[in-house]
Amino acid sequence: METTPPPDISFADLQAKIRTMYFDKDVARGVDGTFMWFMEEVGELASALRGTDKENLAEEFADVIAWLATIANVAGVDLSAALIAKYGHGCPGCGRLACTCPAEEKP
Amino acid sequence: METTPPPDISFADLQAKIRTMYFDKDVARGVDGTFMWFMEEVGELASALRGTDKENLAEEFADVIAWLATIANVAGVDLSAALIAKYGHGCPGCGRLACTCPAEEKP
Repeated sequence: METTPPPDISFADLQAKIRTMYFDKDVARGVDGTFMWFMEEVGELASALRGTDKENLAEEFADVIAWLATIANVAGVDLSAALIAKYGHGCPGCGRLACTCPAEEKP
Repeated sequence: METTPPPDISFADLQAKIRTMYFDKDVARGVDGTFMWFMEEVGELASALRGTDKENLAEEFADVIAWLATIANVAGVDLSAALIAKYGHGCPGCGRLACTCPAEEKP
């Protein structure tokens, strides 16, 4: 039997979707105002990570990423390109696919 | 002439890549310790947003997303599924593809 792959979404797709939904408001609010909303969601994520509600936890991750995409849109950053440049060829610290950097070092 | 589409990466791909690179360390560090690293990157993103170095700004976005993916791996959250559930069908507030929620309301 064939299995259906789980649904997936790319960073370019998400960024375009968030742009369609919110770009006019995002630009009016600007980077600083948008960052405040982002930080509020980061706080909610911290709270959800301490809790036991897995559905709420998933929602808070989605909200944090949506606000990051919003800031990226206002700041003119392509998230896919940024991720591929930094993490597309292994750990930026040691260059390995499975990181061998010392545990106390970033990342 | 054909044009090459810009490179793209999906959330499932990124989460799998980050898992391969860092999962053993991430689990040893746990959610709380990982969240501290994430917050440090959020601070660096704030700093980069105030600056003029676009390359550094893109890197800081990549780092914040990488640490979010790390926390999601440790917490057992599927980011693609979370995003599709919350933002896959339009604005979660008003349900429209281009949001018509009042500007002072979330999101």
